[in-house]
Amino acid sequence: MKNIQIGVLMGSSSDWDTMQHAVHILQQFGVPHEYRVVSAHRMPDDMFAYAQDAVGRGLKAIIAGAGGAAHLPGMLAAKTTVPVLGVPVASKHLSGVDSLHSIVQMPKGIPVATFAIGAAGAANAALFAVAMLANNDIVLRARLEDFRAEQTQTARDMTLPPTP
Amino acid sequence: MKNIQIGVLMGSSSDWDTMQHAVHILQQFGVPHEYRVVSAHRMPDDMFAYAQDAVGRGLKAIIAGAGGAAHLPGMLAAKTTVPVLGVPVASKHLSGVDSLHSIVQMPKGIPVATFAIGAAGAANAALFAVAMLANNDIVLRARLEDFRAEQTQTARDMTLPPTP
Amino acid sequence: MKNIQIGVLMGSSSDWDTMQHAVHILQQFGVPHEYRVVSAHRMPDDMFAYAQDAVGRGLKAIIAGAGGAAHLPGMLAAKTTVPVLGVPVASKHLSGVDSLHSIVQMPKGIPVATFAIGAAGAANAALFAVAMLANNDIVLRARLEDFRAEQTQTARDMTLPPTP
Amino acid sequence: MKNIQIGVLMGSSSDWDTMQHAVHILQQFGVPHEYRVVSAHRMPDDMFAYAQDAVGRGLKAIIAGAGGAAHLPGMLAAKTTVPVLGVPVASKHLSGVDSLHSIVQMPKGIPVATFAIGAAGAANAALFAVAMLANNDIVLRARLEDFRAEQTQTARDMTLPPTP
Amino acid sequence: MKNIQIGVLMGSSSDWDTMQHAVHILQQFGVPHEYRVVSAHRMPDDMFAYAQDAVGRGLKAIIAGAGGAAHLPGMLAAKTTVPVLGVPVASKHLSGVDSLHSIVQMPKGIPVATFAIGAAGAANAALFAVAMLANNDIVLRARLEDFRAEQTQTARDMTLPPTP
Amino acid sequence: MKNIQIGVLMGSSSDWDTMQHAVHILQQFGVPHEYRVVSAHRMPDDMFAYAQDAVGRGLKAIIAGAGGAAHLPGMLAAKTTVPVLGVPVASKHLSGVDSLHSIVQMPKGIPVATFAIGAAGAANAALFAVAMLANNDIVLRARLEDFRAEQTQTARDMTLPPTP
Amino acid sequence: MKNIQIGVLMGSSSDWDTMQHAVHILQQFGVPHEYRVVSAHRMPDDMFAYAQDAVGRGLKAIIAGAGGAAHLPGMLAAKTTVPVLGVPVASKHLSGVDSLHSIVQMPKGIPVATFAIGAAGAANAALFAVAMLANNDIVLRARLEDFRAEQTQTARDMTLPPTP
Amino acid sequence: MKNIQIGVLMGSSSDWDTMQHAVHILQQFGVPHEYRVVSAHRMPDDMFAYAQDAVGRGLKAIIAGAGGAAHLPGMLAAKTTVPVLGVPVASKHLSGVDSLHSIVQMPKGIPVATFAIGAAGAANAALFAVAMLANNDIVLRARLEDFRAEQTQTARDMTLPPTP
Repeated sequence: MKNIQIGVLMGSSSDWDTMQHAVHILQQFGVPHEYRVVSAHRMPDDMFAYAQDAVGRGLKAIIAGAGGAAHLPGMLAAKTTVPVLGVPVASKHLSGVDSLHSIVQMPKGIPVATFAIGAAGAANAALFAVAMLANNDIVLRARLEDFRAEQTQTARDMTLPPTP
Repeated sequence: MKNIQIGVLMGSSSDWDTMQHAVHILQQFGVPHEYRVVSAHRMPDDMFAYAQDAVGRGLKAIIAGAGGAAHLPGMLAAKTTVPVLGVPVASKHLSGVDSLHSIVQMPKGIPVATFAIGAAGAANAALFAVAMLANNDIVLRARLEDFRAEQTQTARDMTLPPTP
Repeated sequence: MKNIQIGVLMGSSSDWDTMQHAVHILQQFGVPHEYRVVSAHRMPDDMFAYAQDAVGRGLKAIIAGAGGAAHLPGMLAAKTTVPVLGVPVASKHLSGVDSLHSIVQMPKGIPVATFAIGAAGAANAALFAVAMLANNDIVLRARLEDFRAEQTQTARDMTLPPTP
Repeated sequence: MKNIQIGVLMGSSSDWDTMQHAVHILQQFGVPHEYRVVSAHRMPDDMFAYAQDAVGRGLKAIIAGAGGAAHLPGMLAAKTTVPVLGVPVASKHLSGVDSLHSIVQMPKGIPVATFAIGAAGAANAALFAVAMLANNDIVLRARLEDFRAEQTQTARDMTLPPTP
Repeated sequence: MKNIQIGVLMGSSSDWDTMQHAVHILQQFGVPHEYRVVSAHRMPDDMFAYAQDAVGRGLKAIIAGAGGAAHLPGMLAAKTTVPVLGVPVASKHLSGVDSLHSIVQMPKGIPVATFAIGAAGAANAALFAVAMLANNDIVLRARLEDFRAEQTQTARDMTLPPTP
Repeated sequence: MKNIQIGVLMGSSSDWDTMQHAVHILQQFGVPHEYRVVSAHRMPDDMFAYAQDAVGRGLKAIIAGAGGAAHLPGMLAAKTTVPVLGVPVASKHLSGVDSLHSIVQMPKGIPVATFAIGAAGAANAALFAVAMLANNDIVLRARLEDFRAEQTQTARDMTLPPTP
Repeated sequence: MKNIQIGVLMGSSSDWDTMQHAVHILQQFGVPHEYRVVSAHRMPDDMFAYAQDAVGRGLKAIIAGAGGAAHLPGMLAAKTTVPVLGVPVASKHLSGVDSLHSIVQMPKGIPVATFAIGAAGAANAALFAVAMLANNDIVLRARLEDFRAEQTQTARDMTLPPTP
Repeated sequence: MKNIQIGVLMGSSSDWDTMQHAVHILQQFGVPHEYRVVSAHRMPDDMFAYAQDAVGRGLKAIIAGAGGAAHLPGMLAAKTTVPVLGVPVASKHLSGVDSLHSIVQMPKGIPVATFAIGAAGAANAALFAVAMLANNDIVLRARLEDFRAEQTQTARDMTLPPTP
């Protein structure tokens, strides 16, 4: 069995609708991963423990999604040198602008790589993790190039209604 | 010596310009307090330790100021049941809108009492802490009522230039 | 019968959907409270009277929710030294950004402790009130610690769908 | 001596820089007026008294400027049927967006006529007051038409640098 | 037959949903009024003609609602000294923030009295017009005071669900 | 003498700092043009006359800059079928966000081509006008291609400080 | 067969709902055009090729619609001197504010003419393209003037419900 | 000589003030890198060539900074599978909100890891690149852990003025 390389965390099971898009990409690329609920505010000690163990467990990246005052990605980043990828989950009232601010505006010294609000951001965080791993994995690089080529072809094949 | 009742924390010494307004109010009201730099992102363990000890030390409130992706107030609140008062420090590029979102938009279950962006918010967080203590301290209540009365008088005494 | 400790006010019965979350928390913790409609703009004298009597009635906090040009929390705070907790109710067109600005951006001298927009903010205002009272009530503190522990456990127990 | 027709209120003497532009217009048009500091938050009773007396004193409009959580115009309007004209004073951190929201987003039933943020808004509130009075004052109407004509001429006379 | 005192204009019949709230208020108060579609962008000459005739026709105010790049209120104001009251109609994508900016941010010299986004703003513009007229109409003043008193009573009579 | 092809209008002489960047581009490309102050709000009739004559005078485009509630471009567009290019001038308090909204959010039927806030937008409006004309002017096309090539070369030649 | 004069591009077939409004206008005016999906991010080489060929193919304008980080219009403009008209497609979470920023805020040197967010902007981009062509096509000018006249008539014919 | 691992690109030499913070971090950590001006809009072919060669040259990441309609990071990402790290440079009028939207809101399929607006974001992009490399470089990991430890110590050593 291969070691887990990517951990996907989210602040609540209600974030699954968004974060599943990250998981699906990792599955599609065959990247060993795990995913679970770890809430920064309701499970702070679990969050710290997870981050603290990340290097030792050989994690190559942590993808963390959260909404509103979204502290999960930044606090994980504060506790590990493993790259943290943040996904702003859309919030009920502010559409994820609050989530985006809480994740991307990290102070100098503790980086969080931030992606788009919502499902697109979740998928892209996973694709970015794949790209990171592909730097040292010729097979994964090829798979990623194929994914891109296929994506290009799909866009090229899109059709629009004929003129009346 | 009286026990410390209010802790004033800030993410960096550069937040002093803002947070000193909280300290000055506490001094003015004679409320036993302490103030120090505790950075959520650069001193996460110190932050957790501070929060964890807060009940035991008899703290009645923690005033926490931070800017940008401001996680200090929310993470303190996640680790203690002592009331946490958050002050959004103005950020360089987004004027504190990011700080405000990161502090006020806490999820259900972990409250942070949030005040205005900048110096006014810092002073008001301290005045709110005084009001909390005044609930059980008849002398402090009187002092607060005096402060208000004086404030009203000062406003009443404000003069405007005469018409030309 | 125990004295009322917390008053929950809202600008209109249409705010009940949001503000009931504050009431439910107070009920759950057994905190003596009352709740009613007091509109800043349509019942200004009632509002002033309510605030004016707050100290004398022994209120320990007033939780006030309002939307749009939300003046209720700030004007209550102007008329009493009892701590005022403001809840920005989501507005029809601006999603509560206007409510948030009207509540949190109080000038130096008159604090309003502000919470998140909507139901989460209402619940958190009540939890904050509980935390304030718990400073002087060992039983309530224990109940709050239990609430937190349970909340942590609930988060820990959250499950996500298995991988296909 | 003619009766005061327009009252110009502001929340603090620091608002004079903005609100003087209203006063100057009223002086220029010879409209009997008064101006003073009345703070909604620090002088709530004075504010209510001012509003309560407005009809009896024969005031035709109240121009009120305030910044941040700007409650002065809305609360005056809640206490009188005399038309209230609100001027959002630019705030330190949010440039007056908060002031604008707090003034313009009044709920159905209590109107505040709102003008632009800052000095332009103050001048325009006064010009609007003049226009209101001009509805029943043929001389003032003529003066206003002259003001407009002159303003048009000044714009027409504006010169731009020649091409090099 | 009494002369028309208030004109209610809107940029499109699709604004009726919003602007009817202004018309209903005027009907309720028995203020002689008219309402019609006048589009700034599609009927610019009609708009100018309407404004140009306003003084001569004895109009006391024009209430103008428009959405998006909402130029109707400001351009009417540029062509008449009759007071213009602007109502920002909610826009499809920006919720009326664009409408609000286009109406309220008028330059010094040409005022537009602006009200809240949407139906509340439309109703309030009409109530403000009533208040303007009431300055010189003792009967209308009484009706407005009654309206307010009734409004206060309605708010006072609002009930909330009992605690379980 | 060649006919004027492009008119550059601005709401006030204070807009010259921004709008001169449009004029300079037109001069640089040798496009016959004129520039003057035409205020939508203070010179509405001049504005309408200018637009009304535009087709007859053979104008190929009107570049119009304005700030705040910027109605100039949209109202010109309402009165002519000559293409109107709008430049949002930065406003004092809202940095030109209000100008941008007032110009770009035109309703279906009356287009205004909008460019960036400030000087870059003014220059680009002029470059766009040149590109429009170049569609039917082989010499101008060549000049524009040269301008682009030179611009590319200038960017390529940019140097950065050496590493220490 | 007449040469294609206007190309309508969109980043995805999901943009058709918006961009069809541009196509319908071009059809209505009988302007020879083509429309297809060209994604800046998934088909970058196709995008560059399309832009590179635009002058040679005799295109008079490219209308490009895209949402979110909308790079299509700006990158087309970077690769051709044919006028590019950008349409900000409404995005899922930010309502097209991100699209608008990504399209309108082009740096000095590479202009993109930007229109309103969504369907109105798409239609207006096409109307603007028609106006550009009409500068050199007396028949098209007449058709555009007719379109405007009809539009004015339609607005004039709009009816509102009678008063009850 | 070691191979270049990180490329730092910026749209203009005026971005150096911001982007030098990325370069300094890479120098501090001894990571082989290069930095140069590559403008998406003025040097589109160079940009594509740079991206196209990135895999072949063995680049492990590209850090790209740009302001306004910031297309550089997203278009690089469209042309390579090497991880792209985007830095929103503060823009003159919108403080970098436009830059942030243009960089972070990438559509599903083409990820850009985004960091904070301005210098903090530039430094953090570089620190993130170091963390990526540290996944496969035990020495670099140690250096990063030291950097963090030192950073923590510096924060701990921060002093605040004594109470008066």
